[in-house]
Amino acid sequence: MARVLNFNPGPAALPISALERAQQELLDFQGTGMSVMEHSHRGKDFEAVHNEAIASIRELLSIPDDYHVLFLQGGASQQFAMVPMNLLPPGRSADYILTGAWGKKAYEEAKNVGTVRVAATTEENKTYVRVPAQGELKLDPEAAYVHFTSNETIHGVQFDQFPDTGKVPLVCDMSSDFMWRKFDVRRFALIYAGAQKNIGPSGITVVIVRKDLVEGARKDIPKIFRYGVHAENNSLYNTPPTFGIYMIRNVMTWIKESGGLSQIEAWNREKARLVYDCLDELSGFYRAPVQKQSRSVMNIVFRLPTEDLEAKLIADAKKAGMVGLKGHRSVGGIRISSYNAMSVDGIKQLVGFMKDFAKANG
Amino acid sequence: MARVLNFNPGPAALPISALERAQQELLDFQGTGMSVMEHSHRGKDFEAVHNEAIASIRELLSIPDDYHVLFLQGGASQQFAMVPMNLLPPGRSADYILTGAWGKKAYEEAKNVGTVRVAATTEENKTYVRVPAQGELKLDPEAAYVHFTSNETIHGVQFDQFPDTGKVPLVCDMSSDFMWRKFDVRRFALIYAGAQKNIGPSGITVVIVRKDLVEGARKDIPKIFRYGVHAENNSLYNTPPTFGIYMIRNVMTWIKESGGLSQIEAWNREKARLVYDCLDELSGFYRAPVQKQSRSVMNIVFRLPTEDLEAKLIADAKKAGMVGLKGHRSVGGIRISSYNAMSVDGIKQLVGFMKDFAKANG
Repeated sequence: MARVLNFNPGPAALPISALERAQQELLDFQGTGMSVMEHSHRGKDFEAVHNEAIASIRELLSIPDDYHVLFLQGGASQQFAMVPMNLLPPGRSADYILTGAWGKKAYEEAKNVGTVRVAATTEENKTYVRVPAQGELKLDPEAAYVHFTSNETIHGVQFDQFPDTGKVPLVCDMSSDFMWRKFDVRRFALIYAGAQKNIGPSGITVVIVRKDLVEGARKDIPKIFRYGVHAENNSLYNTPPTFGIYMIRNVMTWIKESGGLSQIEAWNREKARLVYDCLDELSGFYRAPVQKQSRSVMNIVFRLPTEDLEAKLIADAKKAGMVGLKGHRSVGGIRISSYNAMSVDGIKQLVGFMKDFAKANG
Repeated sequence: MARVLNFNPGPAALPISALERAQQELLDFQGTGMSVMEHSHRGKDFEAVHNEAIASIRELLSIPDDYHVLFLQGGASQQFAMVPMNLLPPGRSADYILTGAWGKKAYEEAKNVGTVRVAATTEENKTYVRVPAQGELKLDPEAAYVHFTSNETIHGVQFDQFPDTGKVPLVCDMSSDFMWRKFDVRRFALIYAGAQKNIGPSGITVVIVRKDLVEGARKDIPKIFRYGVHAENNSLYNTPPTFGIYMIRNVMTWIKESGGLSQIEAWNREKARLVYDCLDELSGFYRAPVQKQSRSVMNIVFRLPTEDLEAKLIADAKKAGMVGLKGHRSVGGIRISSYNAMSVDGIKQLVGFMKDFAKANG
């Protein structure tokens, strides 16, 4: 079996050890005579997996006790609605910081729920190439919350330092840069992240939310959409996506066995350095539009002199066993998604290929 | 490896061929060098799986072209909210038929969305032992829809014939008896079913909905909760639970290779006959509370003379390699969940055990 180098933007590559563990016990989970998929979500075998997954997330990110860690369904897109449904009461307004397509989508969806305003946008010429400086934020001190997207997967724009919103609760869509480094959870009121980039397969969303915020949340919405209902039930209010939670558990085990988030961060920074150095060295051929201080560690976007050359790079890379490099259909170009499961060696192979490609075609 | 006989109520046993196929290609899906979980949901490899799963559901149930088949997240519990959010406009009312715990839960959640009324309930002495006769339904001819639960997993109550609601759209929670027999889809305006009983792992819900109903549905709700948005995007509006859809595809393949729904129905009816015959023969020991015409083919509930004997039966069965027989925590007793993946032979083993148990303890 030849595994390819998988640069997909999400669903994305998973650590081989997490997959091998799943494969080995797919028909017989820990001697129970059934797959983990066939276990009851209320039985002790699955519950141990569920609780281990939550405990590992808590441990790796040092999540304080006054925060819930929830597993929800529906992806980040459902959180675009659930955040205002829970946290934006009638008569209040929420602020949105826009640095790419996903933040804008979150903002547009929130408009279907309540009153929202744009506290900052870096959109220029129909694209985004940077995060705003702190001084650019026009924050409403009475806002119910401020929402931002820490990493924009499509535009390759990432916050290195998080915005300061004072006493206004900070809500973050961390889908595409969750669990690649440690950060101070206390800066946030609520964080959500679709699993399918850094921590697992698609179909499950992690929500980290301060307990007092949940207690004060709206109760006049359907139960299934209340954070409080899921928190009271340890994310077992209804049947969760058990296999996805199991895979997250496996990925968390891999992170811990790899040396924890300090090692994961070091690898990710090294991978990003290798690629951006290549792009900067060959800036006559490769053009990286994102401003240096806003460059994403996770999703590295760039253009070539022509679309034909971009298509050729994608095709040649595929022949060399490297896939998933096509930029998002809305923006074109090339995108290297380099999540946790992509190794430094994998990136070195890709960079070597990129240098050869530039020499041959530049 | 010794597989147990798994009578879990859901997540439930899956066909061994569906699991083996998943195991075999878990690290390398069809020679692509990556797991199906690592494929982009917008790539042609996954899309083929996605479309095959939908096409198989359409084929097996002969679903007419004027119905959408959608894959959504959040389970049946999310449909409890989404159905009224989409189909119950302000100023209208919806009717609910209650024959067990799940129908009641759907009704309670719908109250958080709009105006609902009970068209019939068979609740007596805090339990349910039958479906209502057609003549018992107090239907509102102006109702936006009538909702019922075709099979109540906890109480073991199943509709053999579906209610007739005339011109009022009929909505059915078919989670626990979906895809075990053919039926006339045209009787329904909308059907939803969590996958984790008869067709796949948890984390995915099939929705079959008439197209005109979707067109007339409410647009003043968040996009992520609109059936129309998912229909327009072939259930790829946001990242779907790709592995769950893949497993559904594998299970549909198994159904087709087994001879289709006529064979699946024959097996299920035979399994139910074997168990109920045993219960009726030994009615001095086993007590099946559900009225004969409402007995569930999928979930067979019964009591023993004492709770101690019930606990002993569960423990002895486990020693004999039969698990998942404990009744729901809200009602106690014994429950045999006998979904598609449970073989006739498996049920024969269980019935043999039950006869021996009654002889030894009766």
